[in-house]
Amino acid sequence: MKEIRIGLVGAGWMGKAHTNAFLNALMLYGPQAGKPVFEVVADVNVEAAKTACEKLGFARWANNWQEVVTDSNVDVIDIATPNAFHYEVAKAALENGKHVYCEKPLTLSAEESKILAELAKQKGVVNYVGYNNVMNPANAYIKELVSSGKLGKIMRFSGTYDQDGLLDPTLPITWRHVNKHSGSGALGDLGSHLLSVSQFILGDISRVNALSKIVIPQRPVQAGSSELADVENDDLITILAEYKNGAVGTIGASRVATGRKNYLTFEIQGTEGSVCYSLERMNEVNVYFASDDSADRGFRTVFLGPDHKGYSAFYPASGIAIGYNDMKVLEVHELLAAISEGKPYACDFEFGWKIDEIVSAILKSASEQSWVDVQTLVEVK
Amino acid sequence: MKEIRIGLVGAGWMGKAHTNAFLNALMLYGPQAGKPVFEVVADVNVEAAKTACEKLGFARWANNWQEVVTDSNVDVIDIATPNAFHYEVAKAALENGKHVYCEKPLTLSAEESKILAELAKQKGVVNYVGYNNVMNPANAYIKELVSSGKLGKIMRFSGTYDQDGLLDPTLPITWRHVNKHSGSGALGDLGSHLLSVSQFILGDISRVNALSKIVIPQRPVQAGSSELADVENDDLITILAEYKNGAVGTIGASRVATGRKNYLTFEIQGTEGSVCYSLERMNEVNVYFASDDSADRGFRTVFLGPDHKGYSAFYPASGIAIGYNDMKVLEVHELLAAISEGKPYACDFEFGWKIDEIVSAILKSASEQSWVDVQTLVEVK
Amino acid sequence: MKEIRIGLVGAGWMGKAHTNAFLNALMLYGPQAGKPVFEVVADVNVEAAKTACEKLGFARWANNWQEVVTDSNVDVIDIATPNAFHYEVAKAALENGKHVYCEKPLTLSAEESKILAELAKQKGVVNYVGYNNVMNPANAYIKELVSSGKLGKIMRFSGTYDQDGLLDPTLPITWRHVNKHSGSGALGDLGSHLLSVSQFILGDISRVNALSKIVIPQRPVQAGSSELADVENDDLITILAEYKNGAVGTIGASRVATGRKNYLTFEIQGTEGSVCYSLERMNEVNVYFASDDSADRGFRTVFLGPDHKGYSAFYPASGIAIGYNDMKVLEVHELLAAISEGKPYACDFEFGWKIDEIVSAILKSASEQSWVDVQTLVEVK
Amino acid sequence: MKEIRIGLVGAGWMGKAHTNAFLNALMLYGPQAGKPVFEVVADVNVEAAKTACEKLGFARWANNWQEVVTDSNVDVIDIATPNAFHYEVAKAALENGKHVYCEKPLTLSAEESKILAELAKQKGVVNYVGYNNVMNPANAYIKELVSSGKLGKIMRFSGTYDQDGLLDPTLPITWRHVNKHSGSGALGDLGSHLLSVSQFILGDISRVNALSKIVIPQRPVQAGSSELADVENDDLITILAEYKNGAVGTIGASRVATGRKNYLTFEIQGTEGSVCYSLERMNEVNVYFASDDSADRGFRTVFLGPDHKGYSAFYPASGIAIGYNDMKVLEVHELLAAISEGKPYACDFEFGWKIDEIVSAILKSASEQSWVDVQTLVEVK
Repeated sequence: MKEIRIGLVGAGWMGKAHTNAFLNALMLYGPQAGKPVFEVVADVNVEAAKTACEKLGFARWANNWQEVVTDSNVDVIDIATPNAFHYEVAKAALENGKHVYCEKPLTLSAEESKILAELAKQKGVVNYVGYNNVMNPANAYIKELVSSGKLGKIMRFSGTYDQDGLLDPTLPITWRHVNKHSGSGALGDLGSHLLSVSQFILGDISRVNALSKIVIPQRPVQAGSSELADVENDDLITILAEYKNGAVGTIGASRVATGRKNYLTFEIQGTEGSVCYSLERMNEVNVYFASDDSADRGFRTVFLGPDHKGYSAFYPASGIAIGYNDMKVLEVHELLAAISEGKPYACDFEFGWKIDEIVSAILKSASEQSWVDVQTLVEVK
Repeated sequence: MKEIRIGLVGAGWMGKAHTNAFLNALMLYGPQAGKPVFEVVADVNVEAAKTACEKLGFARWANNWQEVVTDSNVDVIDIATPNAFHYEVAKAALENGKHVYCEKPLTLSAEESKILAELAKQKGVVNYVGYNNVMNPANAYIKELVSSGKLGKIMRFSGTYDQDGLLDPTLPITWRHVNKHSGSGALGDLGSHLLSVSQFILGDISRVNALSKIVIPQRPVQAGSSELADVENDDLITILAEYKNGAVGTIGASRVATGRKNYLTFEIQGTEGSVCYSLERMNEVNVYFASDDSADRGFRTVFLGPDHKGYSAFYPASGIAIGYNDMKVLEVHELLAAISEGKPYACDFEFGWKIDEIVSAILKSASEQSWVDVQTLVEVK
Repeated sequence: MKEIRIGLVGAGWMGKAHTNAFLNALMLYGPQAGKPVFEVVADVNVEAAKTACEKLGFARWANNWQEVVTDSNVDVIDIATPNAFHYEVAKAALENGKHVYCEKPLTLSAEESKILAELAKQKGVVNYVGYNNVMNPANAYIKELVSSGKLGKIMRFSGTYDQDGLLDPTLPITWRHVNKHSGSGALGDLGSHLLSVSQFILGDISRVNALSKIVIPQRPVQAGSSELADVENDDLITILAEYKNGAVGTIGASRVATGRKNYLTFEIQGTEGSVCYSLERMNEVNVYFASDDSADRGFRTVFLGPDHKGYSAFYPASGIAIGYNDMKVLEVHELLAAISEGKPYACDFEFGWKIDEIVSAILKSASEQSWVDVQTLVEVK
Repeated sequence: MKEIRIGLVGAGWMGKAHTNAFLNALMLYGPQAGKPVFEVVADVNVEAAKTACEKLGFARWANNWQEVVTDSNVDVIDIATPNAFHYEVAKAALENGKHVYCEKPLTLSAEESKILAELAKQKGVVNYVGYNNVMNPANAYIKELVSSGKLGKIMRFSGTYDQDGLLDPTLPITWRHVNKHSGSGALGDLGSHLLSVSQFILGDISRVNALSKIVIPQRPVQAGSSELADVENDDLITILAEYKNGAVGTIGASRVATGRKNYLTFEIQGTEGSVCYSLERMNEVNVYFASDDSADRGFRTVFLGPDHKGYSAFYPASGIAIGYNDMKVLEVHELLAAISEGKPYACDFEFGWKIDEIVSAILKSASEQSWVDVQTLVEVK
C-alpha cells in the first residue's frame, strides 16, 4: 500500500468531482491500489478553499496554487481550475517534479501542450489528462474490437457530441463563449471528448476540413440584462477527417443541438464488422459481425459487463448500469495505479497534446475554409 | 398455369383487401402459381356489389351468397362478410364441394368451428382461415428458430396485442361491442391474432386463466347521441397460459391501450436463446443466442431479408421494408398454391377451430375466475 | 449537523455497498443532511468483520450482532445479513429502541414482517426497508405522472423482472434455491423489487393468480460435483393481479430469462397516457400523452434530469447517466434525513410487510392454482 | 375518369416495379384519379419485351424505344432503362410532346439534365423524376414540420444512406462501378436519394466539400473469375454542405457500410425542435419539441398514420406498416393525378436537374479537394 498525497488546485465543482472519484476508487479497489491522501486544497477564493477543505476532507487549505506545487508533502498536483490556468499550474508542477493530473483540455493551444508534454517526459513523472470518456468500459471494449481485427479494416468513423444546454438565447455569456478563456466553443468543450475517443480507438487523424457556425451571435452580459456581448466561438461545428490508416471521418459537436442531452455518439464501420455507441445509453454497445449467419445477422445490443475492462469494479454481473461519474472513478484509479505501481495509462500529456493539435488544425481549417494537415508530433525526447 | 375462379362473398373493405392481395400475388408470383380469376362478387347491399364488381374487376355480381356457393363456375369461396355470417356461408360452400377461404375468426364458437373443420376434412377441399400474421416472414423465421432447437427448450411466451383505436369513449357502439355479432371483444378481434402466432410457433396451449375488463361500459348508440348502449365484452384482457410442452405464457389484448397503435408484440424465452418481435416494427426480429461469446453477446436486431420465408417475393436484399398488406399477399399466394398445386398450408379450418377452442376456454375462465382446460381436439376423421 | 452512528450487521458484499452509499451520500449532500459515523461492524466471520472494519473505516468490530443492537453508541442498526436473519436482528434492534435500516426483503414471511411493522410503529423509531428501486428518480417521476392524473385512470400494469444469471444448469445450488433461507425463488429475489415499484406507484393489489415453474429442478451441490440437490423454488413465475383501484396487472420474474441482464421493466396504461420503463436503460422513461396533437403523438423518450426527484444530487443537466448504485445513495440519504430531520420516507416496515403479504398470497395462489386475496393490512396501531 | 396510356421503355425489374405500382394505385385510388392503360412495352431484348407484355398485361410490345416515343396512342413515356439511356429517351419523348416519367437519376450529368428540364418546361408536359423517397409520408410530415416553423430556424442536417450490399469483394464488377454507365458510385445510387429528401425538405444547398473513397479497388470481371477490373467510383463518400438558409450539413453514402441494410437516415436540428428518421424503420418519425414541459420532454416516436399525407390510401389507422413499394405507389398516383387533373407535383425535371447539379459539385469537390459552389439554376424559361 502506498499513500499518494494530493494537492488539489481549484476548489469548485470539478475539484469536488475529482475528490469524490478518489474516495470511490479507494472504496472499490482498496488502498493497496494506491491510497489517496487529501493533503491540501488551494483556491484564490479563500472561502471556497476553506469550505472544500472541510467538506472534502483535506488536511489544510491554501489561497494560491504556488504553495501547493512546491509543497514537499504533496505527490500529485490535481489541476481542476478553469482551462486558462492549466498551462502555468501544470508547468510549475512539472518543474517541481510533481506528478500531474490535469483536467481536460491540457491547455488552450497546441504549442503550450507541446511544451508540457515534452517537459513531462523529461521529468519522468506521471502526467495524466482527464479525458474521462477514454476510461469508459464501452470504449475499452470497442478499442479491443478494433485492435483485435474483429471489425476488419476500418473504413469510417462518424460521430458527434451534441448537447442542447446552451440553446436558450437568453442565457448570459460565460467564459465558454470567449476565446481567451476557452480556446474554442463546442469543439473544445464537447468535440474534444469525441476526439479523445477517436484517438484512443483509431489512432491519428492526418487532416481535417471544418465548417463552424455561431448560431446565437450575442448573449446578455448577465441574466436579464439587455446589454449584449459577442459570442466568439462555435456553437456548432462539423468536420471531415482523414485518418492515417485511410479511414474517413465525419465529426461534429454542438452545444445548441435541440433535444440532445449528452449525445456523444459514434459509429465505426469496418470491413468485417461495425459498432455503434451513444453515451446517452452508456451501458450498451451495438456491434455487428459480418461473419454471423446471414439469416441471424444484425447489430447486437451488448450490455456492459464483467467481460469489459473496468466494469467489474462496480458490479459482478452484466447489465447493471454504471453512471457517468463512474468513468471518473476509473480514471483516478488508473492514475493512482500509475503512480503507485508504475502501470501504463492512455491519457498522458502527449495524448492531450495530440488532441490539441487536432483542435488547432480544425480551427485553422474552419477559418481558412480548406483542408489542413494535423501537425505530426515530433517524437517527444 | 391453373385458373382459380373466385366467388367473393362480402363487398366491403375486407373484400377489397382480399382482391387487391390476389392481384398483387399474381403480379409477384406470376400465373403459374395459380391465376386468380374474379368470377363473381355478392353482397346483400346491391349497390355495394355492383360497385365492387366494377372497381375490383369481377365478371358479375349477385345480391345473395347462396347463388355464389352453388355456382359451378366458381372454384373457391372467399368469405369476407361480418364474422357472424362465416359459419353458414362456409358450411354451404363446403357442402357444395368448394374450396373455402374464410377471413378470421373461423366462426363465433368452438362448436361451429368444429363442425366446419370436420366437414372440410371430409370434403377434401382446401380450407383456409385468414390469420394473416402467421404468414409474416418474421414469424416464419421465429418458428424456424424454435423448431430447429436454436433457442433450446422453450420456457416462456409473453405477448400482447394492443391498440388504442377504441380509447375515445365518445366513439359510438359497433358490432364489435355486441357478443352476438363478435363473440368477444379485444380477445377475438386482436388477441386471436396473437393466439394464431403462438399456436403456429409453439403449438398447443393446455389451460388458461383470464381476467377481463370492460373499461368503457357504455357508448353512444350513434356519434353525438346522448343515448347510451352497453358494451358487452372485454376492452382489455390478460391471460395466464400453460403450454402442452410445459412453457408458461402471459397473453394480453387491449383495444384501449393508450399509445399503442398496432402493438402485436411477444417474447419467447428458451434455454439457449430468446426472441422478441413487435408488429409496429414488423421488419425486425430481435434474437439472442446464449452460445455467443459472453463479451459480444446481446439481442441482435435482424432485419427481414431473402433468408426469411416469403420475403424474397418482394425484394432482393435485406432491410427493405415490407408492409402490413404484404402479409395478406403471402396468404393468398399460399392459398392459390394450395389449390393449384396441392401445396401444404398452415392455417386450415382445424387450425381456426383450435384458436376458437382457446378463445372459448379463455372466456369461460374469465367468467368462472379459475383455470380452464383448453378442449383437446378430437382427431378430425 | 447531526451525527448518525451506524452499527452494521453483516460484513459481506451488501454491507460494503451500504457503507459506500453512506459515504457517497455524505459527499453529495454534505454533513448537514445527517453525517454517518461508522461505529461498529459485526459478522460471525471474525476475519470478515476485521477486514471490513479496516477497509470500510469502522471504528471497531464485533463477532456477534447482539453486541451491536445493544450498543449505546449506535443510533441505527444497518442489517445486511442473509435474508433469514433479518427478523431476529431487526426485532432485537427495535426492542432496544434503535432505528433500523434493513435490506429487502423485510423477513421471510408476512407474519414476521407484521410483527416487525407493528413493533416499529410502537417504538416510534425510523424503520426503513432497502427497496432501492423505489428511490430511482425514474420511478419518482412515474409516480408523479400517475398521482397528478396526467395518465388518467390507470387500467393496466404489465411488468417483469428478468435476469439470466442462473440460466447455466452447472452452477451449484445456493441459499437462494432453498426455501428456509430465501422464502421463494425469482419471486422474492427479483419479483419483490417489481412489486415494490408497483406498490409505490399504484398502491394496493387486492388479489393474485400465479403460475410458477422450476426450470432446472436439480443443481450440483458444489461446482463440478456430480451430486445433485433439489431446487425448491421458482426459477420463473407469472402472475395475474387485480389492483384495489380496478386496474389489472401481469407481473413476472425469472432468474433464467435468457438474454435479459437486469430487465426490470414495466408499462402502465392509463386512459389519458401511458408510461414504459426498463432498468436496463435506467436513465430514460417513455411516456405518451393522449392529449398531444394526433399528428405529432408518440411515446416520448424522456431522459432523467434535474426535473426528476433525486437526480440533481448527481448532475446539473439532463441525460448524464446515473448508475444502479446511485439508487442506493438516494436511499441512504433518505434514511439519514429521516433520522436527522424527521423527514418522511416511503419504504417503512409497513411497506415491507405489504410486499411480503403480496408475496405470500402469490405463493399460496401458485400452490392452490386459484385466485388468492392479498391480506388487507390491519391498521398498525 | 381519364385513361392514361402508358408506353414503358425498359422491361426489367424496374419496369415491373413501375407497372405493379400503377396497378396498385388504380386499386387504391380508383380510376377517377387517372386510369393507367398499359399500351406498349419496349425493350431491345425482344424476349424480355414479349414476356413483360404478357405478364404485366400490356397490349403490345416493341423492340425499340423510338417506336414508343412516337406512338400516337401513348400519353406518357415511362423510362425504366439503365441510367445511361435516360437522356436520349426522355429528350425524344419530350420532342414528341409526350408526358415523361423517368426513373432517377434524371441523367448522368447536370448539363444533360438542364437540357431536359428546359425542354420539358417549354413543351408544357408533365415531367416527373422517380425520386420515390420524396413521396414517403414520413418525409411529407417532416417537410410540414419544417415549413410550419414548428422546428424553428434550421441549423443542421446530418444524414447518410448506407447499405452493405457491395461489401463482399468477390462480387463481380457491374455497370454501377463504371462511370460512363453510372456517373458515380454510392453517391449517385444512394446519396442522390438522400439529396432528394434534403432538397425537398430544406431547399437548396449552396456549396459542398467532399471526401470519397474506393474501398475495394478491383473486382472480378465475372463471378469466380481471377481476372480483375478497376472500380472507378466511390464506395463511400462523405460531404460537408452549406445550405442557402445558412444551415450546415453532413451527408454520406456508402455501399460497403457493414451491417447497414437500407439505412437512409437523417436528423434535422432546428432552434425549436428536431426530427430524426431512418428508412429501416420507415413507419416511425422521431420528433422533439423544445416547447414541451421540461420534465416531460423527449423525442417522440410518432408512427405514421392518417394525419400524414399519403398514408390513408393504405390504412385507416396509425401504426399499420406501409412498405417500401408503397412509396412507388404514391409516386405513380401523383403522376397520374398530375396528368389527369393537372395537380402539382414535387419531383419535376427541374428538381432532378438540381440534384444532378449537387452531385456534379460533390464530384468536383472530391476531385479538387476543396469547397465547390453548387451551380445556381438559371431560371427555366
